[in-house]
Amino acid sequence: MALELTGKHLIAGKWVGGDKTFSSAPAHGEARTFANGSPAEIDAAVKAAEAAFLTYGYSTREDRAAFLNAIADEIEARGAEITEIGTQETGLPEARLNGERGRTTGQLRLFASHILNGEYLDRRYDPALPDRTPPRPDIRLMERPIGPVGVFGASNFPLAFSTAGGDTAAALAAGCPVVVKGHNAHPGTGEIVAQAILAAINKCGIDAGVFSLIQGEGRDIGEALVQHPLIRAVGFTGSLRGGRALFDLCARRPEPIPFFGELGSVNPMFLLPDAVSARGDEIANGWVGSLTMGAGQFCTNPGIAVVLEGAEGEAFVETAKAGLEKVNAQTMLTDGIAAAYRSGASKIEGTEGVKAVLTTTCDLRNAKPYLFATTGAAWLANHELGEEVFGPLGMVVAVTDTDEMLKVAESLEGQLTCTLHLDPGDADLGRRLMPVLERKAGRILANGFPTGVEVSDAMVHGGPYPASTNFGATSVGTMSIRRFLRPVSYQNIPHALLPADLR
Amino acid sequence: MALELTGKHLIAGKWVGGDKTFSSAPAHGEARTFANGSPAEIDAAVKAAEAAFLTYGYSTREDRAAFLNAIADEIEARGAEITEIGTQETGLPEARLNGERGRTTGQLRLFASHILNGEYLDRRYDPALPDRTPPRPDIRLMERPIGPVGVFGASNFPLAFSTAGGDTAAALAAGCPVVVKGHNAHPGTGEIVAQAILAAINKCGIDAGVFSLIQGEGRDIGEALVQHPLIRAVGFTGSLRGGRALFDLCARRPEPIPFFGELGSVNPMFLLPDAVSARGDEIANGWVGSLTMGAGQFCTNPGIAVVLEGAEGEAFVETAKAGLEKVNAQTMLTDGIAAAYRSGASKIEGTEGVKAVLTTTCDLRNAKPYLFATTGAAWLANHELGEEVFGPLGMVVAVTDTDEMLKVAESLEGQLTCTLHLDPGDADLGRRLMPVLERKAGRILANGFPTGVEVSDAMVHGGPYPASTNFGATSVGTMSIRRFLRPVSYQNIPHALLPADLR
Repeated sequence: MALELTGKHLIAGKWVGGDKTFSSAPAHGEARTFANGSPAEIDAAVKAAEAAFLTYGYSTREDRAAFLNAIADEIEARGAEITEIGTQETGLPEARLNGERGRTTGQLRLFASHILNGEYLDRRYDPALPDRTPPRPDIRLMERPIGPVGVFGASNFPLAFSTAGGDTAAALAAGCPVVVKGHNAHPGTGEIVAQAILAAINKCGIDAGVFSLIQGEGRDIGEALVQHPLIRAVGFTGSLRGGRALFDLCARRPEPIPFFGELGSVNPMFLLPDAVSARGDEIANGWVGSLTMGAGQFCTNPGIAVVLEGAEGEAFVETAKAGLEKVNAQTMLTDGIAAAYRSGASKIEGTEGVKAVLTTTCDLRNAKPYLFATTGAAWLANHELGEEVFGPLGMVVAVTDTDEMLKVAESLEGQLTCTLHLDPGDADLGRRLMPVLERKAGRILANGFPTGVEVSDAMVHGGPYPASTNFGATSVGTMSIRRFLRPVSYQNIPHALLPADLR
Repeated sequence: MALELTGKHLIAGKWVGGDKTFSSAPAHGEARTFANGSPAEIDAAVKAAEAAFLTYGYSTREDRAAFLNAIADEIEARGAEITEIGTQETGLPEARLNGERGRTTGQLRLFASHILNGEYLDRRYDPALPDRTPPRPDIRLMERPIGPVGVFGASNFPLAFSTAGGDTAAALAAGCPVVVKGHNAHPGTGEIVAQAILAAINKCGIDAGVFSLIQGEGRDIGEALVQHPLIRAVGFTGSLRGGRALFDLCARRPEPIPFFGELGSVNPMFLLPDAVSARGDEIANGWVGSLTMGAGQFCTNPGIAVVLEGAEGEAFVETAKAGLEKVNAQTMLTDGIAAAYRSGASKIEGTEGVKAVLTTTCDLRNAKPYLFATTGAAWLANHELGEEVFGPLGMVVAVTDTDEMLKVAESLEGQLTCTLHLDPGDADLGRRLMPVLERKAGRILANGFPTGVEVSDAMVHGGPYPASTNFGATSVGTMSIRRFLRPVSYQNIPHALLPADLR
């Protein structure tokens, strides 16, 4: 198919757009004009979502699985256009967008099979005990969809965390209609994916209110979405500042709703002495790859390496420096992200106790890596050093001894991931670190790098604040469907009136 | 054992109390003096809880089960004193307190067996796929305890929702230390239960920081508890106003935490025509019993009956009136609750379109039932009629037809329960109501009454706001343990470093 864009919102099956527009700011190619949404359009989309819930919320799991698979098929059918517009808008390379498309369709198909097996319903049954004093009634429990869900597209995953990304897939799988506030960094990519979803809606004969995409760049639409009385929950991936503002709006509603925000992380790695001794260079080179992949624009980018001070720690820094020097400039997602990267680096460079190991000049939207080094004492004294700088910026924290390494671990804020690099001789120190790190992060890994988040049953992409706003939830993997479900008990309900899945 | 009270707080195994005191206001017998807590005492208790988590959070399920069973044993050993002080303080009859004690110990034992079977850990395992491109690492997921939990005792369940009640049992079962802010309506009852917990701590050799009870009547201690940086979640049962204030404090923290508040409900019943025809009197008499049990001081008290207007509806009202007239005055839990009951009744009586069917004069702390009748139109026009009045107050809403019955259902705020009374000929109307009610309540029941909440696997005691502040959670039943857990992924972690439950 040729790339054809309406530049409009998709509201319940209709492409609509008013007088207000905004211009895209692609990394390559020409800017395009898109409709710029308003609270009125959010309202229309959410009302259509609520109306669609009356049927979609009671659809069979088989029908929803077929719908999810149809969306995946329709995305695949538009693969070339998605990559064409996606690379223009985001500056991400073609191979990355092709891979991310596979991740996105894989995610949709995974949720299709996940709901078919029915375990997510968490059905529980207490049979009646009529002879007990007092008699126990028949009680059955099942998870039910919550209603319309608001989803915010993320700048750094134009496919896998945006229009038909993980939040949308999980909500649709649960039985919840979705209203997406598209990210203004990739409106064209969002539109093509919305076209795919609409095609699947038509193919499956589903109420078109089940999905809407509102384009725009104003804060007012996001605020209207999270405050709409018919929205039951929100999925968000983005910055701490923006996410916290929306979280606060959700909490202040007359009827508060959950805001599932994934707000980022510095993803520290702890390098234990035997591992550094045996394979410091290998770890350093692995780090260079993980830190600079996708211009470092991953939520799980490992920004901090904690190592014992001394010759082996210094060698690690030198190897990392040598590796990072060879990394070419990479295009960042937006001018704003590139500017924030530069100012974040300056702020760190100006912090007392921090040494610049490798600095660089980035022009406009391009990024090259930075590497800084500091001491455990300086880290512990400067809380800001633990704040995320989005991009390929690494910092090595050299601690005086294992006790200080523990202190650095204890000082951490909530993280998406914490990593241990350890050899068998490091096991005792690993055992001391494990209970500390387990409380700090949603995922603990050993002898690997946190980028490349597996979409699977056992994945947790979340963690204590500010990694996420709900430490009990994950935004990746099949468990993420839980965010859009609520348990309901049915007591002595006649068989014919029970939901089909409980009969 | 003889009734012996220190009148002090229990902080990590020590009975402590400063200069500040308050006086209890028992329904019967003499007032007693109790320590009146301060934020400093909350701080000491929470810090001890955090210290205890370092061992208790890593205890085996077998050890925690033994501890829960020991608490139940120690409560049983103090049964006579608990009932003695409990009846004095709350005015609840002896049989009720004995029954509630059984519910409390049963709940503790249920959680002991629940954690032993291990299903609550929700373990998930994605085995490594080394030959895949890219290779998949070994990923394992398990639910882990979150850390110190704050619990607020409830006035209406001095045992089952207070010191060693459902929230405490669930948190301790999960592996979380607990700091209880005791309800000032039953400080002596709370102290005896705390004595039982301390005895179990000593018997099992557990860090005494795992449990503290802070007595007091000031709002400052509750506010200090929910805002303490080391508290990870809060369990609360109480009023909408008080609960919302604490919810807001939790949401506004620098690091927001979940506030699991169960804030009450009017628990409407829908009486379908064939059922009213066939057994209107039976339903009316059942309602009288459920509505007035325990002076109507249950969260699941069914305050509203919706019925079609006409002769059969009027007969239902008359039967209910006749039954309610025979109910004796009952002592309410506190003077404040009795005063709120009277003012709530006056407000309803003064609402346009409301007819007083049965009014009463309650003196001081005593309550007799009220019965009001209104029309569907008046109900729909007056949102306040849907607000809970705590006590034995019933309202019959007579609707013109089944469409108006649906409208009343659609107008409801979130509820703990909704009830259908229906006969086989009512099935079509039941089918229309089910999807509406399912979105309004945590539990839907048929041909029964919502009081007498079963503590079991399939129970949901929760629901959309304002029934609870987290529609995804329950505060009764084994599923309530989820509130105090968070999922953690372990990726490629060496066997020896995995938590025992994942090896």
